[in-house]
Amino acid sequence: MPAKTNDPNKKTWLTVSENSDFPIQNIPFGVFLTRDDIITIGTRIGDYAIDLGALHQLGYFEGIPLTDDIFLQDTLNDFISDGKKTWRSVRNRIGEIFDIRNDILQNNEDHKKAVLFSMEEVEMKLPVQIGDYTDFYSSKEHATNVGSMFRDPENALLPNWLHLPVAYHGRSSTIVPSGTPVRRPLGQTYPKGANTPLFGPSKLVDFELEMAFITTDANALGEPIPLEEAEDYIFGLVLFNDWSARDIQKWEYVPLGPFLAKNFASTISPWIVTLDALEPFRVQSPKQDPEPLPYLRQYGEHSFDITLEVDLTPNNGIPTTVTRSNFKHMYWTMAQQMAHHTINGCKVNSGDMMGSGTISGPSPDSYGSLLELSWQGTKPVKLKDGSERKFIEDNDTVTLRGYCQKEGIRIGFGEASTQLLPALEYKRK
Amino acid sequence: MPAKTNDPNKKTWLTVSENSDFPIQNIPFGVFLTRDDIITIGTRIGDYAIDLGALHQLGYFEGIPLTDDIFLQDTLNDFISDGKKTWRSVRNRIGEIFDIRNDILQNNEDHKKAVLFSMEEVEMKLPVQIGDYTDFYSSKEHATNVGSMFRDPENALLPNWLHLPVAYHGRSSTIVPSGTPVRRPLGQTYPKGANTPLFGPSKLVDFELEMAFITTDANALGEPIPLEEAEDYIFGLVLFNDWSARDIQKWEYVPLGPFLAKNFASTISPWIVTLDALEPFRVQSPKQDPEPLPYLRQYGEHSFDITLEVDLTPNNGIPTTVTRSNFKHMYWTMAQQMAHHTINGCKVNSGDMMGSGTISGPSPDSYGSLLELSWQGTKPVKLKDGSERKFIEDNDTVTLRGYCQKEGIRIGFGEASTQLLPALEYKRK
Repeated sequence: MPAKTNDPNKKTWLTVSENSDFPIQNIPFGVFLTRDDIITIGTRIGDYAIDLGALHQLGYFEGIPLTDDIFLQDTLNDFISDGKKTWRSVRNRIGEIFDIRNDILQNNEDHKKAVLFSMEEVEMKLPVQIGDYTDFYSSKEHATNVGSMFRDPENALLPNWLHLPVAYHGRSSTIVPSGTPVRRPLGQTYPKGANTPLFGPSKLVDFELEMAFITTDANALGEPIPLEEAEDYIFGLVLFNDWSARDIQKWEYVPLGPFLAKNFASTISPWIVTLDALEPFRVQSPKQDPEPLPYLRQYGEHSFDITLEVDLTPNNGIPTTVTRSNFKHMYWTMAQQMAHHTINGCKVNSGDMMGSGTISGPSPDSYGSLLELSWQGTKPVKLKDGSERKFIEDNDTVTLRGYCQKEGIRIGFGEASTQLLPALEYKRK
Repeated sequence: MPAKTNDPNKKTWLTVSENSDFPIQNIPFGVFLTRDDIITIGTRIGDYAIDLGALHQLGYFEGIPLTDDIFLQDTLNDFISDGKKTWRSVRNRIGEIFDIRNDILQNNEDHKKAVLFSMEEVEMKLPVQIGDYTDFYSSKEHATNVGSMFRDPENALLPNWLHLPVAYHGRSSTIVPSGTPVRRPLGQTYPKGANTPLFGPSKLVDFELEMAFITTDANALGEPIPLEEAEDYIFGLVLFNDWSARDIQKWEYVPLGPFLAKNFASTISPWIVTLDALEPFRVQSPKQDPEPLPYLRQYGEHSFDITLEVDLTPNNGIPTTVTRSNFKHMYWTMAQQMAHHTINGCKVNSGDMMGSGTISGPSPDSYGSLLELSWQGTKPVKLKDGSERKFIEDNDTVTLRGYCQKEGIRIGFGEASTQLLPALEYKRK
């Protein structure tokens, strides 16, 4: 059980600033390159990156069944594959090692030198090799906004939407960690008034505020995962910015869905926050009406109260928080998404990623994309530097943040931050 | 250059039956489990599986820059990553080793014992770890048939179809090699006349006759692959059966495209036939009108004359060939598909797979799915055992075959064969 590790009164002997996303109650997992150019699996407390490979070699995980090289890898896939019991044992042990009442590592300067890095010394990498990435479309507010804009406000939701968590497959190869700049994509569009499709840089690049969960091996081909087991196969969550080119999307997406409008890049936060760490922040998800079919029926608290924010920062460095939303607005829960995804026997592997879809809240200042915030460009968003945005401009940086807060404890996700670079010059030889 | 290896007069010292798909001019690549339960990369001539790991250890690839363990792996990804020059050198060398005029291996019984297996002794595996899988929709006849059935025969093609190769992302985790049985999927449907969605086994399971190509690492994130370079990054092709559940698809696919209707399984043939082996069978692709945008404009012969057939075999074992089509019917070429896929900077990796979409020919007996062959069930397909099919029934086996033939040489793909098992009994606890 994670209860002891989640104890809000627990303190660490490491220095943690008051508003840190990473108190000793968090203990996320990630992959980083150390100052010695060694890649390792690690965790974070405050502004310290902790090398779990080194901790393991020094014997701090004795008694937990782990292979010798489990943390000396460039992805978390094998560790995630070890299953929930192992993740929990390791997280609890880390909680003990850094507990203020534990002086073993605290008093060992050599060990501390081998294990502790400042966050400034390390370079965060993609935490998993993502096998398959699926993106859901599970915020009712977002689906309603998009349906109102592009179809009919009276029938904004399509007939299937309230009966199943609509989703589509995305591209794994272009998911990048926070800090990796992204180029404005080139592509085909067919703007109003044109007589023929045009080629050039997308003019309507947008962010999408999402979260994504990472799974472990869960089933054999052909076997559904029952809803009541689904959460056991979720390792943790990250922030997810599903970059979108609205003008490319509009022209390409019928009848098979979004493709190049989405697959040029998606940005994730590099630390995976475990479901165990989020346990204290469970809340009820929105009431579902009509009641779903039995394989999707769920009782109890299966959502999480995670505050989400997006900053837009032009090249001048003056940030504006353009939206504030919350993960709890999601109509379909992660367990429902996973039960639906596998009801046909679809196989889920360790390191697969499932995005929530854009998380819009009920009020216009809580929408999860510029498309909605600027209502298709009709209501430009005002920035603090006096400029306006209908969509993202070259060299703008978009930063997603997320955190839970309760009883003085803040469990956060850090950030998923990306600068949009200008499009490449493209000329066919 | 592959010219010498492709020479139609070339003979091998191995026994090859007259109508074999695998003469010495083919030399495909695959992964198999040997009689000693060792997994290795191999090739095939006639009914011999050839262990390339053993050949390499015995020094037969001397002079070609290969790492020691390049063939002692359970996927071809690293070998494919070595690039076209290396694939070509290895294929040419294999052609020399098994040439009837070369007696080195031919006269070495010990080496032959280590290297040669009969196909019956080995178990074929998935040849690559598929990172991302994309499915195109590039047969004009198929898109027209589907558009006529579901929309309007007068406007069967959607406005974007003639301007870009429409595609969507599929699921990698459920691509299986020939011989792996597949379960009829469970899911939600909303049949005509129902008042609410229903749950149960799909009633409209279908095959889709496709081919897929496998790529190597081709570009950095953000960099398009120019059309004229695209073929250099294609390792080879396989047969591809994109299993589909039409009733699930109809209810789920708006607005984000097919999801559970497709991702329960796809079947591939296990031997990857290289683009070099297909070189003699190049043909012009259909004339494109309107002319595409410059980044998609292509001249010369960029399609291949590959005869395709599908057998449907009920549990009684009596097969019926239900369709005969050809890869050359594809409106968009593989190079155009790849240039389009990466025009926005989408990264392509070694082992990625790109499906053609259902390949329907112009005549009703050349359609690539039962949906089209039975025209939505209105014209049941007659089988040789006297039964009829509107869609696939439990325990039916679907077998795709493909081959090129010219000047007495036949380069084939073997088969992609799959039995459909009955659905699981599913009851929510």
